[in-house]
Amino acid sequence: MNNLDKSPESSTLALQNAFFRLRSNKAFELFVVGVIIFSALVIGARTYELSPGLIRAITILDWAVTFIFLFEITVRFLGEPDKKRFFLKAWNVFDTLIVVVSLIPIDNSDMALIGRLVRIFRVLRMVSIIPELRVLLDSLFKALPQLGYVMLMMFIIFYIYAAVGATFFAEVNSVLWGDISISMLTLFRVMTFEDWTDVMYETMAVYPLSWIYYFSFICLTAFAFLNMVIGIVVSTLEEEHARVAKQEADDAGVPTMLDLQAQIAELKVLLEKR
Amino acid sequence: MNNLDKSPESSTLALQNAFFRLRSNKAFELFVVGVIIFSALVIGARTYELSPGLIRAITILDWAVTFIFLFEITVRFLGEPDKKRFFLKAWNVFDTLIVVVSLIPIDNSDMALIGRLVRIFRVLRMVSIIPELRVLLDSLFKALPQLGYVMLMMFIIFYIYAAVGATFFAEVNSVLWGDISISMLTLFRVMTFEDWTDVMYETMAVYPLSWIYYFSFICLTAFAFLNMVIGIVVSTLEEEHARVAKQEADDAGVPTMLDLQAQIAELKVLLEKR
Amino acid sequence: MNNLDKSPESSTLALQNAFFRLRSNKAFELFVVGVIIFSALVIGARTYELSPGLIRAITILDWAVTFIFLFEITVRFLGEPDKKRFFLKAWNVFDTLIVVVSLIPIDNSDMALIGRLVRIFRVLRMVSIIPELRVLLDSLFKALPQLGYVMLMMFIIFYIYAAVGATFFAEVNSVLWGDISISMLTLFRVMTFEDWTDVMYETMAVYPLSWIYYFSFICLTAFAFLNMVIGIVVSTLEEEHARVAKQEADDAGVPTMLDLQAQIAELKVLLEKR
Amino acid sequence: MNNLDKSPESSTLALQNAFFRLRSNKAFELFVVGVIIFSALVIGARTYELSPGLIRAITILDWAVTFIFLFEITVRFLGEPDKKRFFLKAWNVFDTLIVVVSLIPIDNSDMALIGRLVRIFRVLRMVSIIPELRVLLDSLFKALPQLGYVMLMMFIIFYIYAAVGATFFAEVNSVLWGDISISMLTLFRVMTFEDWTDVMYETMAVYPLSWIYYFSFICLTAFAFLNMVIGIVVSTLEEEHARVAKQEADDAGVPTMLDLQAQIAELKVLLEKR
Repeated sequence: MNNLDKSPESSTLALQNAFFRLRSNKAFELFVVGVIIFSALVIGARTYELSPGLIRAITILDWAVTFIFLFEITVRFLGEPDKKRFFLKAWNVFDTLIVVVSLIPIDNSDMALIGRLVRIFRVLRMVSIIPELRVLLDSLFKALPQLGYVMLMMFIIFYIYAAVGATFFAEVNSVLWGDISISMLTLFRVMTFEDWTDVMYETMAVYPLSWIYYFSFICLTAFAFLNMVIGIVVSTLEEEHARVAKQEADDAGVPTMLDLQAQIAELKVLLEKR
Repeated sequence: MNNLDKSPESSTLALQNAFFRLRSNKAFELFVVGVIIFSALVIGARTYELSPGLIRAITILDWAVTFIFLFEITVRFLGEPDKKRFFLKAWNVFDTLIVVVSLIPIDNSDMALIGRLVRIFRVLRMVSIIPELRVLLDSLFKALPQLGYVMLMMFIIFYIYAAVGATFFAEVNSVLWGDISISMLTLFRVMTFEDWTDVMYETMAVYPLSWIYYFSFICLTAFAFLNMVIGIVVSTLEEEHARVAKQEADDAGVPTMLDLQAQIAELKVLLEKR
Repeated sequence: MNNLDKSPESSTLALQNAFFRLRSNKAFELFVVGVIIFSALVIGARTYELSPGLIRAITILDWAVTFIFLFEITVRFLGEPDKKRFFLKAWNVFDTLIVVVSLIPIDNSDMALIGRLVRIFRVLRMVSIIPELRVLLDSLFKALPQLGYVMLMMFIIFYIYAAVGATFFAEVNSVLWGDISISMLTLFRVMTFEDWTDVMYETMAVYPLSWIYYFSFICLTAFAFLNMVIGIVVSTLEEEHARVAKQEADDAGVPTMLDLQAQIAELKVLLEKR
Repeated sequence: MNNLDKSPESSTLALQNAFFRLRSNKAFELFVVGVIIFSALVIGARTYELSPGLIRAITILDWAVTFIFLFEITVRFLGEPDKKRFFLKAWNVFDTLIVVVSLIPIDNSDMALIGRLVRIFRVLRMVSIIPELRVLLDSLFKALPQLGYVMLMMFIIFYIYAAVGATFFAEVNSVLWGDISISMLTLFRVMTFEDWTDVMYETMAVYPLSWIYYFSFICLTAFAFLNMVIGIVVSTLEEEHARVAKQEADDAGVPTMLDLQAQIAELKVLLEKR
């Protein structure tokens, strides 16, 4: 930080600090949240029957929202002290992508649909702005790998039952059991208990013992595995809880068993010395 | 408490004490509970086909209940030592409101309907009278802010899916996907697994890949989030449990790790001194 | 226990001991379990179309089962050292009642139906014989009072919603909302998500905002309360678990914090004395 | 391990070691997992409409998979140091069975169906290869005996309700309540809330009070018992969790209460000696 190179670099630094302050400003954050809510309302309004005048107004508002978002992401980028780290955060990449795609001018109807989809996903920016929601979603993603093997197991069970179903029931009802992918969708329906007896009674007319197929599938998936998933989620939460409790205990200076043991050992040394 | 001003004020105090005693009287409480149950039965009876004579009898009983409630709320108010605090308790405000609205004479049919609604809500007075129910409802309300962010997240997911649904499926079935609010209702239906396959098969006829929409929505809401909600409720209950257990341990004089550490430190001082 | 009164009383005692030994005999217990299973199979067989010969055979077997049960209950009663305590156990009363009602000769068809019902309830004797099942059912009953207030709350919510439903929706569909009792059944159906949208769409045709009624009801009951019930059950189980763990720790002689404190205090006394 | 018997035995040992190394080789394991996934895809492909050429190709691939599996199981068997222990592991028996039955040449169509079923069950080899899935399934089986009495209780409740249902409702709808086994299937349907009101409304037309039957059944099974099952699963998981936590604590050398007590006792001895 030499005094000589003050002119160009320090002005950049000053600008960055200004952006950093703006970005961290509570009022600015609330303003962005407000714009996101407004943008969500505009998206909702679009799904109703509107007069041409309103549609034009909404299109203009939409562009206004896009430019505010562009401004906000620029402020956040320029305010970031370490530029490289900016794009390492998944949420920043998501925000930038949403804004960039929104800026692409749309001509034909296919692209228009994608444009509308991108505008809908802007509502997710709510999650990227509010830290509590970000924590919630992060904890959901963090639980996924732990659930990974349960989900693989689930998939194997689905696959086997779907293969059996497609082999035996395809001629009974090809709409439900035509091939293995349709069968898996039908089994997902059975798992949610959605009119599963209609599916069963149909195949029981041909294979009277096919209730075993459904009964075992429901027991295996719906009961045992759902409980397992609940169990894992509960244990994850308990872990988190225990971690927080331990943290608090450490902060409060509560001695551990090891501390007590060390103290007693000190006493012993003192006693033996004398 | 000067002896001189005994004449007017002390008589008020004596009256207040009398009311306080009446209010705290177990028999009076049971009588009020009985009146509430009776009022609930009258409300129930009204929903059946009744002879004009019975209707007249019920109307009279209804007014009797209203006046008993008016009397009871007056006793509770006059028996309250600190008049200002009376209306700070939400349940007192609720009780007063129910009684006051019941007293308004009703002429035209629109008001009659509101009158009947207010009479139905009298059953809720059961909750305001029985402390255990009040605790139950309070704990439900206490859990709400903790669930706040989960519910906001849920709402965002619903909003995004509803916007996507209304954009793509409105032309398939405008009754279910006409606009964003109807779409959210349809998604709530999908979340409860209520004939969700009928909804899906309909849109799959136009968009064969729309099962991804339903599958991902069900996974996201019904599975992950319901579990999260369960997790939070469980952790809330455990917290309560732990709090009670700690309270009991403190009351029973069980020493903490800190107590033990302090005692061992004392020993060390004793040893070193000598 | 004088030697003189040996003749009449001691022979009774000897007989009682013999019955007590028979009752506690593992083979006898297994034989009774076998008879109960056989009786259950007979009950199941009766629900199929049978030839007159088989029906006669089953009737005879039925009486054989009844007399074996009568013999078994007599053995259990005579084998009981304290006769008064026998009928204090709910399961003994249940067993006796089942046997006694089975013995009543049946003439007309109305009584025959009750006779068949009593024979069906014999299967419940399985629970009274196998201790593990008795524990399971007892723990269910033990959890009931703890759930009592939740159930009362649930009933109040049902009652209020049913009263509102019967007031507004009776003219829309009197089969579902005719009076308060039918409305409660309809609400129970809504709570189980069983075709609840059909019920809703019907009333939404007249009252477009009635979705609030269903949505709030489902949120209130299905979500919040089911979770609460789960929470209570979980906490009950944890209590049981903790109790068992504590028991084991006590048995294994693990010292408590209080023991450690007492020992340290002893050390201090020793140190101060010298 | 004498040097003399090196010629025949040691060469066998060398071969066994070679097989053991191959079996434990990560690349070999990944190759087998790949073959299983490929075999699963072939099974899935069979459920689609295929040209005769593709069917022939699939049949050849199928045999290739069978021979790779035969080779792999031979390697695993020869690589096992203790041959007797090989067939004591349930998964090894399962793997061998699947391969052996796949090798049986199939002629008539009935056997062809069984052949296809066996090929489908090959997907389960995924579980036998990946240890994490094996642990998952083992823990499911381990929980079964603990759930045994709950399931027996459940069966008794089902049996009694089915017997009552078959007795009273058989004449109302013989398709649903014809005999005790069909009644149990109908009750399983009621338990999953699948169109249970249709079943109820039908019998309520004849027996107006039959709602008690359904209501009590749903309360007994769906609510109380599902919660009980959840409770047991949760407690099982907690036990596992506690076991792991204890293991870690032991490994980390955290002193127990007993250790502390012993140390304090030592101090006391030291103090008293002097």
